[in-house]
Amino acid sequence: MSISAGPHVGILVFDDADELDIVGPFSVFANWAAHSALQPTVTTFSHDGAGVRLAHGLRLVPAAAADELNALHVLVHPGGAGVGALVSSPVHLEWLRTAHKGTPVIAGVGTGVLALAAAGMLAWRPAVTLRGHVDALLAVDPSVVVESGASFVDDGDVVTSAGITGGIDLALHLVARLETPTAARAVRERIAHESASDLDDGL
Amino acid sequence: MSISAGPHVGILVFDDADELDIVGPFSVFANWAAHSALQPTVTTFSHDGAGVRLAHGLRLVPAAAADELNALHVLVHPGGAGVGALVSSPVHLEWLRTAHKGTPVIAGVGTGVLALAAAGMLAWRPAVTLRGHVDALLAVDPSVVVESGASFVDDGDVVTSAGITGGIDLALHLVARLETPTAARAVRERIAHESASDLDDGL
Repeated sequence: MSISAGPHVGILVFDDADELDIVGPFSVFANWAAHSALQPTVTTFSHDGAGVRLAHGLRLVPAAAADELNALHVLVHPGGAGVGALVSSPVHLEWLRTAHKGTPVIAGVGTGVLALAAAGMLAWRPAVTLRGHVDALLAVDPSVVVESGASFVDDGDVVTSAGITGGIDLALHLVARLETPTAARAVRERIAHESASDLDDGL
Repeated sequence: MSISAGPHVGILVFDDADELDIVGPFSVFANWAAHSALQPTVTTFSHDGAGVRLAHGLRLVPAAAADELNALHVLVHPGGAGVGALVSSPVHLEWLRTAHKGTPVIAGVGTGVLALAAAGMLAWRPAVTLRGHVDALLAVDPSVVVESGASFVDDGDVVTSAGITGGIDLALHLVARLETPTAARAVRERIAHESASDLDDGL
């Protein structure tokens, strides 16, 4: 992987990950990377670097394997039907815990939040997940403080988001955190996303 | 390709196509396909069946080549930086004109609308495209009746949409056309998309 001085966003992909959980945040960060003076980079990766078949059949070839990545500033963990296997994978959860120690922001999208909970990252902390999956989240960790109705929840080193719009909103929020609300608004304008969130708030 | 009795949606992919122009509509149609009694199918395809590198670097492997497809009911043409090459490709435009004759609905997403215009499909007809690209659309065909501000425009056999939200809205609208508004609302609920469009209107 090339070395960049700017913020580095990694997006984990895996078999049966949800297409929009990946591509929504990816498009926000990639659009930011194409225009920001901070020279951000965004990299998709799978654990072994191999191609994956996503939840609705789309086949994607990631840019890297997990062990080829430079240090990340943001790790995006999507959801999708494949999360079930990850939640019960000791190898994946240990990898996540290690990643958490070295990564300023872990971002769970949709049901990807269940994997963060399974790794112990959300104990007694506020979070949100995909509508209809709150009970599943609480089954993984009953101490999670679920903020139903939120598009995303920023709890510092761990941020979580609800559905598709939430994943895009969360990524825009992180651009605002990493650069400025002005930069995030410029990304939103370029991708023509009609976000309900106010980027001036919650920073 | 497998034979299906239900409606068949094909999504064209090409080098430098926009990621969200593809994955937004794909996710809507794939979610519909997973739940509808009509047994819809959705197939990604490139002209030669080979993998493509999308506009922001995502690499995608389509399910088919164009000449492997069964008859389509809906052909989705995304936009992105790669549209410029297609607009000036006589081979692509002739392929589009042939596809138009055999396909009930041609759906242009974002700047993909410029390729439809270059193929002559939008002469003196209402359409919309990605914000900021109206002048480029009118340079291709000055007779297009641009409906600025619309999320999508349904003109029967040719439908067009604006940005990312527009592509998802357009796909939801087509689900409503092909099945029912109730089916489209169910898809929208499942993908947790906060659409501004009213699916009861315009059918």
